[in-house]
Amino acid sequence: MGGWIFTDEIVVDGGARQPVDYVNPFVGTTNYGTTNPGAVCPQGMMSVVPFNVMGAVNGNIDKDSRWWSTPYEYKNTYFTGYAHVNLSGVGCPELGSLLLMPTAGELNVDYLQYGSSYRDEQATPGYYTNYLTKYGIKTEVTATSRTGRTRFTFPAGQGNVLLNLGEGLTNESGATVRFVSDTEIEGSKLLGTFCYNPNAVFPVYFVMKINKTPKTKGYWKQMRKMGVEAQWDNTSGTRKLYPHYTKEMSGDDIGVWFTFDAESNEQVEVSMGVSFVSIDNARQNLEAEQSGKSFEELHTAARQAWNDDLSRVLVEGGTEEQRRVFYTALYHFLIHPNTLQDVNGQYPVMEGDEIRTVRGNRYTVFSLWDTYRNVHQLMTLLFPDRQLDMVRTMIDMYREHGWLPKWELYGRETLTMEGDPSIPVIVDTWMKGLRDFDVATAYEAMYKSATLPGKENLMRPDADDYYSLGYVPLREQYDNSVSHALEYYIADYALSRLAKALGKKEDAELFYKRSMGYKHYYCREFGTLRPILPDGKFYSPFDPMEGANFAPSPGFHEGNSWNYTFYVPHDVLGLAKLMGGRKNFVDKLQKVFDEGLYDPANEPDIAYPYLFSYFPGEEWRTQKLVKELLARYFTDKPNGIPGNDDTGTMSAWAIFSMIGFYPDCPGTPDYTLTTPAFDKVTLRLDSHYYKEDKLVIRKSSNSDYIKEVKLDGVKHNGFRITHDELVHAGELVFEMSENNKMNENNK
Amino acid sequence: MGGWIFTDEIVVDGGARQPVDYVNPFVGTTNYGTTNPGAVCPQGMMSVVPFNVMGAVNGNIDKDSRWWSTPYEYKNTYFTGYAHVNLSGVGCPELGSLLLMPTAGELNVDYLQYGSSYRDEQATPGYYTNYLTKYGIKTEVTATSRTGRTRFTFPAGQGNVLLNLGEGLTNESGATVRFVSDTEIEGSKLLGTFCYNPNAVFPVYFVMKINKTPKTKGYWKQMRKMGVEAQWDNTSGTRKLYPHYTKEMSGDDIGVWFTFDAESNEQVEVSMGVSFVSIDNARQNLEAEQSGKSFEELHTAARQAWNDDLSRVLVEGGTEEQRRVFYTALYHFLIHPNTLQDVNGQYPVMEGDEIRTVRGNRYTVFSLWDTYRNVHQLMTLLFPDRQLDMVRTMIDMYREHGWLPKWELYGRETLTMEGDPSIPVIVDTWMKGLRDFDVATAYEAMYKSATLPGKENLMRPDADDYYSLGYVPLREQYDNSVSHALEYYIADYALSRLAKALGKKEDAELFYKRSMGYKHYYCREFGTLRPILPDGKFYSPFDPMEGANFAPSPGFHEGNSWNYTFYVPHDVLGLAKLMGGRKNFVDKLQKVFDEGLYDPANEPDIAYPYLFSYFPGEEWRTQKLVKELLARYFTDKPNGIPGNDDTGTMSAWAIFSMIGFYPDCPGTPDYTLTTPAFDKVTLRLDSHYYKEDKLVIRKSSNSDYIKEVKLDGVKHNGFRITHDELVHAGELVFEMSENNKMNENNK
Repeated sequence: MGGWIFTDEIVVDGGARQPVDYVNPFVGTTNYGTTNPGAVCPQGMMSVVPFNVMGAVNGNIDKDSRWWSTPYEYKNTYFTGYAHVNLSGVGCPELGSLLLMPTAGELNVDYLQYGSSYRDEQATPGYYTNYLTKYGIKTEVTATSRTGRTRFTFPAGQGNVLLNLGEGLTNESGATVRFVSDTEIEGSKLLGTFCYNPNAVFPVYFVMKINKTPKTKGYWKQMRKMGVEAQWDNTSGTRKLYPHYTKEMSGDDIGVWFTFDAESNEQVEVSMGVSFVSIDNARQNLEAEQSGKSFEELHTAARQAWNDDLSRVLVEGGTEEQRRVFYTALYHFLIHPNTLQDVNGQYPVMEGDEIRTVRGNRYTVFSLWDTYRNVHQLMTLLFPDRQLDMVRTMIDMYREHGWLPKWELYGRETLTMEGDPSIPVIVDTWMKGLRDFDVATAYEAMYKSATLPGKENLMRPDADDYYSLGYVPLREQYDNSVSHALEYYIADYALSRLAKALGKKEDAELFYKRSMGYKHYYCREFGTLRPILPDGKFYSPFDPMEGANFAPSPGFHEGNSWNYTFYVPHDVLGLAKLMGGRKNFVDKLQKVFDEGLYDPANEPDIAYPYLFSYFPGEEWRTQKLVKELLARYFTDKPNGIPGNDDTGTMSAWAIFSMIGFYPDCPGTPDYTLTTPAFDKVTLRLDSHYYKEDKLVIRKSSNSDYIKEVKLDGVKHNGFRITHDELVHAGELVFEMSENNKMNENNK
Repeated sequence: MGGWIFTDEIVVDGGARQPVDYVNPFVGTTNYGTTNPGAVCPQGMMSVVPFNVMGAVNGNIDKDSRWWSTPYEYKNTYFTGYAHVNLSGVGCPELGSLLLMPTAGELNVDYLQYGSSYRDEQATPGYYTNYLTKYGIKTEVTATSRTGRTRFTFPAGQGNVLLNLGEGLTNESGATVRFVSDTEIEGSKLLGTFCYNPNAVFPVYFVMKINKTPKTKGYWKQMRKMGVEAQWDNTSGTRKLYPHYTKEMSGDDIGVWFTFDAESNEQVEVSMGVSFVSIDNARQNLEAEQSGKSFEELHTAARQAWNDDLSRVLVEGGTEEQRRVFYTALYHFLIHPNTLQDVNGQYPVMEGDEIRTVRGNRYTVFSLWDTYRNVHQLMTLLFPDRQLDMVRTMIDMYREHGWLPKWELYGRETLTMEGDPSIPVIVDTWMKGLRDFDVATAYEAMYKSATLPGKENLMRPDADDYYSLGYVPLREQYDNSVSHALEYYIADYALSRLAKALGKKEDAELFYKRSMGYKHYYCREFGTLRPILPDGKFYSPFDPMEGANFAPSPGFHEGNSWNYTFYVPHDVLGLAKLMGGRKNFVDKLQKVFDEGLYDPANEPDIAYPYLFSYFPGEEWRTQKLVKELLARYFTDKPNGIPGNDDTGTMSAWAIFSMIGFYPDCPGTPDYTLTTPAFDKVTLRLDSHYYKEDKLVIRKSSNSDYIKEVKLDGVKHNGFRITHDELVHAGELVFEMSENNKMNENNK
C-alpha cells in the first residue's frame, strides 16, 4: 500500500466524520450514470447489486425493453434479487447474473411473479439493504474482494431462497450447477458479448453456501416447448421443478431453490464465492475471505477498506454536497479496473485457455478509450502501486495475446471504441516516474500496434490508410474515421515522447510526424475538423452539428465534429495556429460552451474547459467553466453524474477538477491548474514512489479566480504544472481573486 | 461365464455359418417394434444407433410430430447422426442423445439442414454402416460395452463432425460440455422423464475423442430471443457459433463442431465413452475398452461377443427365415437389462446421489411388467450367472431405495405400468435353483411391498383396497384397477410359493388366499373379468371389447377385458371351473383367437396359446396356434415383431415358442411344451449351475402335432415339464404326428 498507514485520527471536518461517510452509492444510479448502489470492495472482483431492471412492472426501464446496461435503476421499483459480479458505469449490458432472491410463502420460481417492491433502501460503501414489502423480508448484502455475503431476515413461516441462473444483464446464456450438499451448490455460467461482440464470452464459476439446512431444495428449468408430445408432458414450456435430482443441471434458464421453516425474524445468510478460473478457486476464494467471519465482521472490513482508500485524499471546506460529490466520485473511481486473480494468484490469460499465476495483482475491466484520459493519471497519483500492477497487467496481456488491451473484459478483447489507448496510459505512467515495469516489452507492444500494416493490426483496423495518408479517409458513412485518426494521433504523440526518452530517435520522429496529421482534417470553411473522402476531398454535404445526442455522424463516434475538433491535446497551440490564432481558437471554444455543443459525458471533449489555460489571460474561462460544469453536472443525487460514469472517467474528471488540476494531455506528465473546490486538500502520496508523503493544496478564499499560484511558497509561472513539480512540492497554494481580469499570471 | 467355452468348431448348418450370421438387426425397426439396427454389445451400456426421426423430411414419423419412442424408423430417410446410449424395444421416448453427425462442405449446425438421405445401409451385431448421399460420406459404427467408435470416410474437401447435445429422443434437455484439448471434449447431458415421469431424470457423462486434429473447432448454441436489444445482436434467436471459446458451454440446445481438410477417402474416427457416474469414469471406460484398438479390432470383438452369446442355443433345421427370426430374437433378448457400472465397478445408487462399487455386474433398464413373464426365465435358463446378478441388482436397489424395482431406468424408478413384478422374477429364479443371493433380504423386500398399507406403498398404490377387499375397485374411470389386481394376484401367488418353501406357513397362506381374489372379478353374465365399483357391484354399462387398439378402457391397462380375462396363470384350472368347466374355458379361449381378440403384442395375453395344454386333448390347439402366431407375427423383415419388443419380451416369447416350451406362469418353475420350430435345438447350459452342460431337443419330423414326448428316452407324461426335469434331462425328444387327434399324451 505504499509508505503510510491509515490511522483513525486522520479525519476530515474536525474528527466527526470519515471520508467513507460522505459516499452516496446512489449517485449515478439514474440518468444513465450506470453506477449501482451494491456492495463492493475497492478494486473488487465481486459486487453484490440489487437487480431491479427485469419484469414488466418496471415499464420501459426493463433490460429487455430497450438498450440497457446496468443492473439497477433508481427509479425502478421491482426487485428480483441480488446480482453477483457487475460492471459500474458502462454503456453496454454485461454480467449482472447469479441472481439471489429471497421470498416467503409458497415457492414460485417465475421472476415475473416472485419479484417484490421495496422500501428502506440504504447504501454505504460495502453495504446495501432494503425491505421487501411483498414478503416482509429485510435483505442486506456486503462483500469481500471475491465474495459476497447476503443476510435475509424472514418473517415467520416458509422462507425461500432462489438463485436464478437463467436471467441477468448479460445477453449470453447457459449455466450448469450441482448440489455439493444440502447447503452448498457449485457451477458456472457463461457471460459475455459485451457491446455485442459475439465471441467475447467467458465463464464465471461460483460456489454458494447457505447457513441453514433447507427443508426442501431443488432446481428449476424452463422446459422447451415440446411437439405433439406436450399433450403427455405438462412440463412442456413451463419452469419445471426438480425436487429430488441433485446432480448436474444445465440449461439456458435454470435455477436453484431452497425452502425453510423460518421463525419470526430468523436470519439466513448466503455466501457466494466466484472465480474466473475454476469452481475450486471459487471455493478457495470463499474459504479464504469469509471463513469464520460474521456478516458484521465482513461489513466492517469492507467499510474500513473503503475508508482507507478514500482517505488518500482529505478535503476540508467546500459544501457538504461538494464533499459528498467528491468522495462518491473517488468511490466510483476505485471500482474498475478490478482484481481478476483468485486468492491463489491464478487467472485466465488474455484470449486463451491457459491459467497462469500472477505475482501482485492481475487487473481486468480496462475501458481504455475512456480511462486513458484521466483514470490512470489519478491512479498514478494516488495509488501508484496499483497503476504499476495495471501497466504490468497490460504488458502481460500483450505477452499472452500479442496485443495490448483496448477494451478488455475478463480476459476478452471486446474491441469496443477505437484507438490505441494503452499507449498513452503506459507512456504517461513511465513519464511520471513509475518505471518498475518491462518498458522494453511495453515498447515492443506499442511499436507493433503503431507500425503493423494490414488487417492484422487489431488495434488499428485502418492502419494502411493511416500510415500511407497520414489520416483515415471516410470509406463507409459511419466508420468513425476521424475519431479513429484522432486517437492514433494522440497515441503516436505519446509514443514519440517515449521513443525520444528511450533514445529511439527515428521512431520518435516518425510518430511525432504522424501525430501532426490531424491537420489534414482541419477545414477552414467550417473552422472544424471534417471527414476526408478516399479521393482526398472533404466529405460533403457537411454539418458539424450532425451527430449530436448519439445520432450517427459521418466520421465521428458518439458525437459530432464540435465534440472532436479541439481533441488535439498534444498540439493545442498548433491547432490554434491552424484556426487563425489564439483569439479565433478561444472564441470558437467558448462558442462550444455558449451554444450547448459541449457534451460533459463524452470523453473526446471533456478536457475542453482546460484548454483555455493554454492562452495567457484566458485561464479565467477554465476556472469559471469548471466550477459551473461541476455544479451543473455533478451532484450528490441519483442523477448526479452527467452520463455513463465510464468506469470512473466522469468521476475522475470531477475529482481532478475539484482538487485544482487536470491531466489534459494523456501521455504528457503535465496538468492544467484550476480553482480547487475545497479550502484545503491533502493528497496522501505513497512515499515509496514519491519524495513527499503528501501534497497539501490550499486556496486563500472562496473567490472564483486564481490570482497567483505558489509552490512551496514560491510563485509558479503559468497555469500548467508538471507531475514532478506537483509531487515534490509539498504545498500548492492558490491565491484567489474575485476579479477574472486581475489574474497576475496573465502577464 | 460358466462352465463351457465357445470354440469356433461349434457351429450350425454344417460349419458354414455362425449364429451371428443369422441376425438381422433391422427386424423390429418398423411397425412399432422399436428395436434399432445400431451397434451394441450383449447387455452393453453403450449403443450407437442411426438417428433418423428428426426433421420435417421424415413427415409424420418425426419424434416431435407424434408419440414416438425409438431413435430409428426403417421407413424414414433423413439421417441426422448417431445417437449414443439408447433403449431397445420400449414404448416411451427416452435417451437417444449425443448425436454425432459428419457432414462435408460448409459448416452448418442446423439439423433441419445438415441431415442427409442415405443408402447402402447394413447392420450386423456390433456394426452398422450407411452412405450419406448428400455428402458422399461412408459412416460405420461399432461398440464396446461402454463406448462407441465411429468411422467416417470423407470425400476430398472440408469435412465436419458435429455433436448435437440439444436434440435427442429424450424429452429432457440441458447439457454442458468443454474442450479438454483440440481433439477431446467432455461433458454431461440430462436425460429422463421416461413415460413422462417428470422426476425420473439422470445425467449421462461423456468423453469424446477424435483421431485427427481439426482445422477449426468450436461450439454452437441456440440463442434465446432477446428483447429490443436483438436489433444490436444478430445472434438473437439463432444458432450462434463460438469458434474461439473452449471452456464450459452449457444450455438447452448446444453442440460441438470440428472441421478438417480431408483427402479423398480419408477416414476420421470418433470414440465416445459414457458413464452414469462421472466424466472421469467415462474417460476410464474409454481408455479401458478402446485404448490402442483399431475400428476393425473393436468390430471383431463385438461380433465375437455376440456369437459367443448367441451360440448358447444352436438350432438345426427349420427354414432360413426361422433361423433368422430365432437368432434375431435371441439378439434382441440380450440387449436389456444392461450393464450400469463402469469399468471400475462404480454405479449411481437407486434414487440417490451416492456412488457405490459393485462386485459382479450392476444391471439397469428393468422393464419388469414386461420381462417378468419370460425374459428372466430365459435368462435363468441360458445365462444363470447374469440372472443372478440381475436378482442381486434388484435386491441392492431395495437396500438403496427401500423398494424392489418396478420399471427401473438408470437408477430411477419410473413407476411405469403396474403390479409388483420383481416378486415373480425373484421367486422364479429361486425356485429354479439359482439361490446364490440374499433371499432373506429379498423376502423382506417382497414382504414389504406385499403388506405395507397406505399410500407409502410405492409398488401397490391401491394396497389398502386390495388388502381389505381382496380386489381393487374402480375408483376412477381409467384407473386400470383390474389390471393392478391381476398383477398383485400373480405376485402374491409367487410369494406364497416362496414363503412356503422358506417355512413361513402363515405368510404362505395369506398370500395364497389373496392370489385367489381374482374370482371377485369374474362375471358370469359376460363370462369375463369385469371391473368392480367401490360399492361392490360390477361396473356398468360394460363391454368386454372396450379398450381394443389402445383405446382407454375402464379397469384395464392397454387392453380390454378379453386381453386380461385368462391372465390367472397360477390358477388356470380354478378359472376354468369358474367358467363352468374345461369346455367353456377352451371354447371361450379359442374364441379369443378366432375373433381376433388376441393381441400378440400386449403382455397379459401372450401366454394364452399355451393355456390349452392344461386340458388333456386340447394341447394341439397350443401347438397349432403357436406355429401360426410365430409365422404370422415373427418374420425376418423390418416389421417382423408384432409391436414394441418390450426390452426383449416379444423376442423371448418367440425364442421359447421356437424351442418347444414356454414358462406360462411366472414364479412357477414349469413350462408348457409345444412343437419346436427346428429339427434339433442344443441349449448349452452353464454347468456351474446345471447338472448337464447341454440340453438337446429334437423332433422326429416336421409334422405339426406332438404325439409323444421323451425325456432321455423315457416317455414324459402330459404337456407340462418342470425346470428341474428339463435341465437334468440331457435330451428332450418330440415324436411328431400329422394328426392332432392321435396325440398319445391326451390320455
